Amino acid sequence: MQELKDRILREGRVLANGILKVDGFINHQVDPALTHACGREFAARFKDLGANKILTAEISGIAPALTTAFHLGLPVVYARKTKPITMPDQVYLTLAPSHTKGRMVELIISPEYLTHGDKVLIIDDFLATGATILGLVRLAEAAGAKIVGIGALIEKTFEGGRAMLEALEVQVESLAVITSMDDGKIVFNEK
Amino acid sequence: MQELKDRILREGRVLANGILKVDGFINHQVDPALTHACGREFAARFKDLGANKILTAEISGIAPALTTAFHLGLPVVYARKTKPITMPDQVYLTLAPSHTKGRMVELIISPEYLTHGDKVLIIDDFLATGATILGLVRLAEAAGAKIVGIGALIEKTFEGGRAMLEALEVQVESLAVITSMDDGKIVFNEK
Repeated sequence: MQELKDRILREGRVLANGILKVDGFINHQVDPALTHACGREFAARFKDLGANKILTAEISGIAPALTTAFHLGLPVVYARKTKPITMPDQVYLTLAPSHTKGRMVELIISPEYLTHGDKVLIIDDFLATGATILGLVRLAEAAGAKIVGIGALIEKTFEGGRAMLEALEVQVESLAVITSMDDGKIVFNEK
Repeated sequence: MQELKDRILREGRVLANGILKVDGFINHQVDPALTHACGREFAARFKDLGANKILTAEISGIAPALTTAFHLGLPVVYARKTKPITMPDQVYLTLAPSHTKGRMVELIISPEYLTHGDKVLIIDDFLATGATILGLVRLAEAAGAKIVGIGALIEKTFEGGRAMLEALEVQVESLAVITSMDDGKIVFNEK
């Protein structure tokens, strides 16, 4: 998606340890028009999968998942990283490493909102190692739901996440695919 | 806003300690169409304030802040509760009690995205004691920004938050104003 790639080139910054900082329009400050356009693009790519629910992880997944859900007319569920007191005692819980926090985080979903028979489209901000998305997959499978597609705003191919998702045999879409950030230079794939 | 009040009456649940559970459409599962409509309503109420930025707190403020920002054509900044490694060392940080987590949480904003001269509209999911919103006010003031308006999806008048905000002398709008939840019965004000 050219609009997103242009923005990444203009404002993204490559930090140490392969971190791409996009805090100016995705991860701390959010550009609603761009996020809306990304949601529209995801909706177009995933419209024929028969998904009945969008699943994401707080925090940075919420904005793109919400706009995708808006365009598809579906509810969105975001996995919590801390169990609020409004949640029942019995929950689906898994652990996933957080790249930007440098530690393991919990991903928690209430059985009230993810159930057997759900056809789930996962949307997140990054597809890097795939660890967060695989955590969401585990939660969905624990609930008896089926994953039908996976979308990420930004994919970093050199962290191998896509290969980790191959066994799922579902459509995986990224709106900006970065193949290298060597020497701080962001290179997209040719598509 | 009748659509929101109807939904609260239909699906909201009053838990112990004055907690209103709206996890089915605001706090865990989100209804994008309703959130979009709430954003449109906030935008209509706040359109003449000259705001140039929307400020909220992760996590549950993100969705309504994003849709409001979309309708007003403004960027949204969400205060982080954990400092990510993409953030500079010098930040604005304050502490606020979390109702649903039962402990103090940090609210952190990077000076990159909130600066002197900003005219800030705060949007959050709840106005209860006002503690989170006052935390956001402190961060904005620390940055030299000016608060021009405050909006909440749901206000619980019996927790006194509105009085805490009076000294700011800004427009405060809530889309559903709950005056009582005694005996588990949700009562809205007459407006």
